Amino acid sequence: MTLNYFDHNATTRVDDAVMEAMLPYFQQEFGNASSRHAYGSTARRAIDKAREQVADAIGVQPMQVVFTSGGSEANNLFIRGAADSLKPGHIFISGIEHPCVLKPAQALALRSGERWVMHQLAINKLGQVDVGAANEALTVQKPALVSVMLANNETGVIQDVAAVAEIARCQNKDVYVHTDAIQGLGKIPVDFAALNVHAMTLSAHKIYGPKGAAALIVDKRLLLKPLIYGGGHENGLRSGTENVPAIVGFGVACELAKARTMKTAQHVAQLCERLEQGLTEMGAVIFGAGAERLPNTCYFALPDMEGDTLVVKLDKAGFAVASGAACSSVNPGQSHVLEAMQIDPLLARCAVRVSLGYSNTMEQVEAFLQAIKEIVAALRGMSSLAL
Amino acid sequence: MTLNYFDHNATTRVDDAVMEAMLPYFQQEFGNASSRHAYGSTARRAIDKAREQVADAIGVQPMQVVFTSGGSEANNLFIRGAADSLKPGHIFISGIEHPCVLKPAQALALRSGERWVMHQLAINKLGQVDVGAANEALTVQKPALVSVMLANNETGVIQDVAAVAEIARCQNKDVYVHTDAIQGLGKIPVDFAALNVHAMTLSAHKIYGPKGAAALIVDKRLLLKPLIYGGGHENGLRSGTENVPAIVGFGVACELAKARTMKTAQHVAQLCERLEQGLTEMGAVIFGAGAERLPNTCYFALPDMEGDTLVVKLDKAGFAVASGAACSSVNPGQSHVLEAMQIDPLLARCAVRVSLGYSNTMEQVEAFLQAIKEIVAALRGMSSLAL
Repeated sequence: MTLNYFDHNATTRVDDAVMEAMLPYFQQEFGNASSRHAYGSTARRAIDKAREQVADAIGVQPMQVVFTSGGSEANNLFIRGAADSLKPGHIFISGIEHPCVLKPAQALALRSGERWVMHQLAINKLGQVDVGAANEALTVQKPALVSVMLANNETGVIQDVAAVAEIARCQNKDVYVHTDAIQGLGKIPVDFAALNVHAMTLSAHKIYGPKGAAALIVDKRLLLKPLIYGGGHENGLRSGTENVPAIVGFGVACELAKARTMKTAQHVAQLCERLEQGLTEMGAVIFGAGAERLPNTCYFALPDMEGDTLVVKLDKAGFAVASGAACSSVNPGQSHVLEAMQIDPLLARCAVRVSLGYSNTMEQVEAFLQAIKEIVAALRGMSSLAL
Repeated sequence: MTLNYFDHNATTRVDDAVMEAMLPYFQQEFGNASSRHAYGSTARRAIDKAREQVADAIGVQPMQVVFTSGGSEANNLFIRGAADSLKPGHIFISGIEHPCVLKPAQALALRSGERWVMHQLAINKLGQVDVGAANEALTVQKPALVSVMLANNETGVIQDVAAVAEIARCQNKDVYVHTDAIQGLGKIPVDFAALNVHAMTLSAHKIYGPKGAAALIVDKRLLLKPLIYGGGHENGLRSGTENVPAIVGFGVACELAKARTMKTAQHVAQLCERLEQGLTEMGAVIFGAGAERLPNTCYFALPDMEGDTLVVKLDKAGFAVASGAACSSVNPGQSHVLEAMQIDPLLARCAVRVSLGYSNTMEQVEAFLQAIKEIVAALRGMSSLAL
C-alpha cells in the first residue's frame, strides 16, 4: 500500500518502537498474566509497567487505569457501569459524542422499568458545547451522569470539558463526569486532574499503538459495575484474559505520545495551515474554523462536491481521507456532528476529513492540494458537460 | 524463558503461521476496516476471510460469527444480550461453568426490578453434568436460557451438551441454549449443529492464536442485545474498531485447529496416558478419571501435597503447570469445579492441572514425572523431619 495516509483520526500505523515492545509477548513471553508460573509473572510485570506508562501520560496513579479492549468498550463501561451503580436520573451527553457514548446512553434511557432520561447538550455553530446553554440545562435537571468528549473526532474542535464539569459538580456533588479523550491524547496535552472529571477514555490505536487496547481512567471514589463479569481481572471491573502484547504496546504508545505531543502538534499545525489556506482558496468551507481545534484535523467541504465522491477519487489518486468518522462508515448518512452544528445538509454532504500524523510532509500536502484541484476540475467539467 | 510449558488450557504460544499472517496488519495494512479508502478495504477483506475460516472450523455460515475481544466478552454477550431481549425467566447453567458465565448469570439474577432466577445444574462425581438431574430440573422450571460448557477447563471433562440442549428445547421451544466451547476447539472435533445449540463461544488464544480475538457463534434466529453499543460493527451486535491483526490470527488459528485436531489429540493422549500412569503409581488421584475427557488435560492431586506449593516448586524445576484455572488465580480459593464434584476439600487443595500441547514431548513428560518424584520426596522428607 503506497497511499498518502491522511486519516489518523480513524487509526494509525503501529510505531516501530511499539511493535518492538509488543513482539516478544506473542511467542516468547506468551503467558497468561493470571498464571502462577514464570510465564505468568513475566506477563503480569509487563502489564504493570504498561499501567504505569498509561497513568503517567495523563498524570494519574496506575491503580486508576482500567484496561479494556477498545475505546467503545471503555465508553460503554462508563455509561452502563456508572448507571448500574446509581439511582436512575438524568444523563447529559454533548450533541456531538461518538456513537459509542450516544448509543449506550440511548439504550439506558430505553431500558424497561427504569427512569433514566437522556439529554443532549447544545452545540454552537463552531462545533463547541455551548457552555451557557449547558449551565441552563444542568440547572433545570440535576445531572447524575455527564459525558463530554475532549476533542471531536470529525471537526477536531476542542471542548471546554472542565467548565462543563464544574457546572455539573455545582449542581450535584455526587455527579459522575466523564470525558472521551481518545482524539485528544497525543495531539494536545491531556491532564486528568485539570479536566476536573471522574473518568476518562483513552485508546491505543489512535496514538500509534495497536488495536485491541484502551483504558477507562477512573477517580478512586467512582463506583462502577463491570460490563464484562468473570475472573475478576482489572480490580473486578473488567474480566477476561489480558491482551498482553496490546497492553504493552499501549503503554509504549502513551510514553511516545507524552514525549512528542508538542513537537508533532507544531509539525502538523504547519501542514494544516497550508492545507486550509489552499482549500480556502478553492472555495472550501472549514468546519469549526474559529474554534480551538486539534492541530492535525481539517474538516472541510467544497460546495457541490459530494464528500463520498471526493473520498473515492482521492483514494484512486493515492490519498486516504475520510468523508466522516470511520466508526460510522458502516452506517452511512449525514454526520450527526454537522447536524448538531446546524450546517446546511447540502453542505454537510460535501464534508471531507483530513487528519494528519507526524510522518506526513509538506510535499504530501502540496500534492494533495494539486490532486484535489484536478479532481474538482474534472468533476465540474463533467457536470457542466452533463448540463 | 526455557520452561517446559504444560499450561495450554490457560493460554498458548502464538503459532508461527498465525504470527506471519498477523504481522502485515500492524504496520503495513494498518487501516480501520470501516474506512472507505484502500487501507480500509484491505482490512475489511482480511476480516471477511477470517470470518470464513472461523465459521468453517465449526460448520456454520460466516454471517453467524460475531467477533469479540475475548471469550469472557463473548460469554457475557450471550448471557446479558439474550436476557435483555427476553422476558425474565429461569436461567440454567452447569455447576462448573467458567466465572465469565457464572458471574454475569449471578449479576442478572441480582438485577433490581427483574425476575431472572439462576439455577445450577448438578454435577456428578466424574465432573459431568448429570443429564438425568438436568431433565428433572428443567421440567420443574421452564428454562429461558441455558449454558453448558463443552469441556471443562480444569478437569477437561466433556459434557453432553446436545442432550441437555434437547431436554431444554423440549421444555421450551423458545429457549436459547449456549455452549462455551473454548476448551474444546482444537482438542476435539466441534460441530455447531451437532451440539444442537443456539450460540457458542470460541477463543483464539487457547488454539495458538492471539489474545484479543474470540467469537460468539449465533443461530440466525437468535435475538441479542449488544453488550457494547456504538458504530454498529458486527451487524450491530458488537461495536468498536475491529482488532484486525488479532482477528486475522484467529482465522488462521481456526484453520490450523481444524487441520490438526486429530493428530494433536493422538499425540497428547499418548503423553497424558504415560503421565497419568506415572502419577497414579505415585498415589495420585486423577479427577474425572472414567469420564470422557479432553486428550490433553490431566487434573490430579497427590494427597497431602498442596497444589499451590507443587506449582511453585515445579516452576522452579522448569515446569509451568497450574493449580487450577488461570482465570481465577487472582481469586484464590477452592476450585468451584471440584466442589461441584463433591471432592473432599482437603484433596481439592492438592489439585494440580497439566494441560499439554502439540509441541510437548514424551521426554518432557518423563522429566516432569522425575521432577515431581523428587519434589514430593523432598517435601515428605521435610515434613517427616518436622514431626
